[in-house]
Amino acid sequence: MVLDQNWFTEAAHETGSAFSLSIRQKLLEEQTPFQKLEIYETTHFGNLMVLDGCVMLTTRDNFLYHEMMSHVVMHSHPRPRRIVIIGGGDCGTLREVLRHDSVESAVQIDIDERVTRASEKYFPELCESNDDPRAELKFADGIEWIRQAAPGSLDIIIVDSTDPVGPAEGLFGVSFYQSCLKALAPDGLLVQQAESPLMHLPVHVAMHAALAEAGFSSTHPVSFPQPVYPSGWWSAIIASRSETLPPQRELQVPQESLQYYRPEMHQAALVVPPFLSRAIASGKV
Amino acid sequence: MVLDQNWFTEAAHETGSAFSLSIRQKLLEEQTPFQKLEIYETTHFGNLMVLDGCVMLTTRDNFLYHEMMSHVVMHSHPRPRRIVIIGGGDCGTLREVLRHDSVESAVQIDIDERVTRASEKYFPELCESNDDPRAELKFADGIEWIRQAAPGSLDIIIVDSTDPVGPAEGLFGVSFYQSCLKALAPDGLLVQQAESPLMHLPVHVAMHAALAEAGFSSTHPVSFPQPVYPSGWWSAIIASRSETLPPQRELQVPQESLQYYRPEMHQAALVVPPFLSRAIASGKV
Repeated sequence: MVLDQNWFTEAAHETGSAFSLSIRQKLLEEQTPFQKLEIYETTHFGNLMVLDGCVMLTTRDNFLYHEMMSHVVMHSHPRPRRIVIIGGGDCGTLREVLRHDSVESAVQIDIDERVTRASEKYFPELCESNDDPRAELKFADGIEWIRQAAPGSLDIIIVDSTDPVGPAEGLFGVSFYQSCLKALAPDGLLVQQAESPLMHLPVHVAMHAALAEAGFSSTHPVSFPQPVYPSGWWSAIIASRSETLPPQRELQVPQESLQYYRPEMHQAALVVPPFLSRAIASGKV
Repeated sequence: MVLDQNWFTEAAHETGSAFSLSIRQKLLEEQTPFQKLEIYETTHFGNLMVLDGCVMLTTRDNFLYHEMMSHVVMHSHPRPRRIVIIGGGDCGTLREVLRHDSVESAVQIDIDERVTRASEKYFPELCESNDDPRAELKFADGIEWIRQAAPGSLDIIIVDSTDPVGPAEGLFGVSFYQSCLKALAPDGLLVQQAESPLMHLPVHVAMHAALAEAGFSSTHPVSFPQPVYPSGWWSAIIASRSETLPPQRELQVPQESLQYYRPEMHQAALVVPPFLSRAIASGKV
C-alpha cells in the first residue's frame, strides 16, 4: 500500500526503512535560524515534533527517551548536583533531572529557542519544571559553552541532541568530548544519545572510539525502546573517567512519577547484546 | 513525503502508525489455503516475508525474535526435553530450540505448509536444523493437536503465531490455554508472542487475564526489540503453574551462536516497565 497525505513519514534512506504516523493536522511549520520545525497533531500519539524532517518526540511515547536519558546516569553518580543539558530544547530531560533533590543547578543549552517556545505551547507537560529556581534555560552554542566552562565544574553532562548531521554534528567529535572531560569533576559522567544499535551501528561504535580517544576510561551503552525513532530501538552511551560505573544508587525519585525507569530497569538497560559488544570491541561493524 | 511503490508498507491503522522497508523486487506472491504469502528482496534487510500484509520476518533482524522466543523459556525450565512449537513455520524458533542438548523431541505444528516451503527457499539459514532427527514438522491445526495431546506429555509449548486475527485468533483464547495446561507436565511452561507492549497493550493485558483464567498460576512478560514489527518493541508471555519462574539455568548453548541472548539479557528481558506492570495488575489500559 502507499500512504497518502494523511500520514507524516520519516524515511531513513540510508537504512532502507521508514516510519509513519497518521496525522489530523499540521499545527506549526516554521523555518528557524537553524532548522525547519514542524508540529503535527497525530491520531494516536498526541502531538508530534519534527526537526528537518526527523521525528523528535510525541506526547505518547517520549517518556521512554526522557526517563532513560536522565535517570540511568543520575542514579549512576554518587551525588549529582551540577547538571548541564546540551540540546534538549523540548525540556523533557530537564523535567526528569529536576525530580532529583540532589540537583542544585540544571542548565539547558539549546541553540534554537524556537524549539523551546514550541514545546511550551504543544508539549506543556514537558515544560512544567522550567520555572524551578534550579533551572536555567540558555539559547546558545553548546559546544562553545562547554569549551568555556570552568574546569571540573560539572557533575553530569547530558547531550540530548539531534542526529550527527546538521546543527548537532560537532557534538559527536573528539574535540567536543575533550571539552566535556575537562569541564567534568573527577567523578563526573557524560551521557549522550547514541542512535539505533541496529540501524546506526557504525555511528554508535564510532562514538565509543571517539570518547575513548578523548580520554574517557570507560563507555557503557544504555538500550531502550523508542517506537517513533528509526528501528524503535534506541541507545545512549555513558562515559566515565573510571574503569567501571559507580554503584547504582537506590531510587531517588518517586516511583509513581516514572513509567519506564525502575531500579531493576537500570541494570537491564545496561546489559549489552552480544552483537553490540562484539562490534564495540572490534571497532568493526 | 509520500513513499512510492519501491517500498513495502505495513500500516497499523488501529494504532495510527506504519513501518516501511525499501524493496528491490517481489520474489513471491501466493494465495495459500490460509493466507496471502509474499516474499520481497529489500535493499537493507535481506529478504522479507509478509503474511496477509503483515511483516513476519526479515533476514537481518529475525535473530531478536527467535532468540528471545526460545532461549528465555528454555533456560527457565529445569530440563526441557519435549518441545512443541505452534506456528513458527519459518523454522527459526525450531532452529534455536534444537541448539539445546536436553531436547529429545521438537515438534513444529504450522497450519500452512507453504510458509515453510517459502522459508526453505528464501530463509535457508533458518531451516538448517530441519533435518535434525529430533525435529518433526507437521502441517496441521495446532489448536486441535494440543487438544489431543497426551496429558502431561510436554515440557514447553511455544506459541509462535501471527496476530490474534485470522488463522491465529483461536490461539489467544482461554479454551486453547486450558488445552495447553493439560498437555504440559507439572513443571511445564508455555510461552507465547504477546504483541507490542506499547501499541497493543489491551491485547497483552487480556492475554495475562486469559492465561490466569485458564489456570496458570503466574505469567511473566518478556520484552525485546523487534524493529520490523509495529513500534519496534515486542513481547512474549511465559506462563507457569508455579507462582514464580524456576531459577535461570546457566547458558546451555554456545554464546558465539547468539547475537542478542546472553545470561544477563535473560533477567533484563524479564524486568517489567512500571506502566506495564500497573496495566497488568489493574487489568485496565
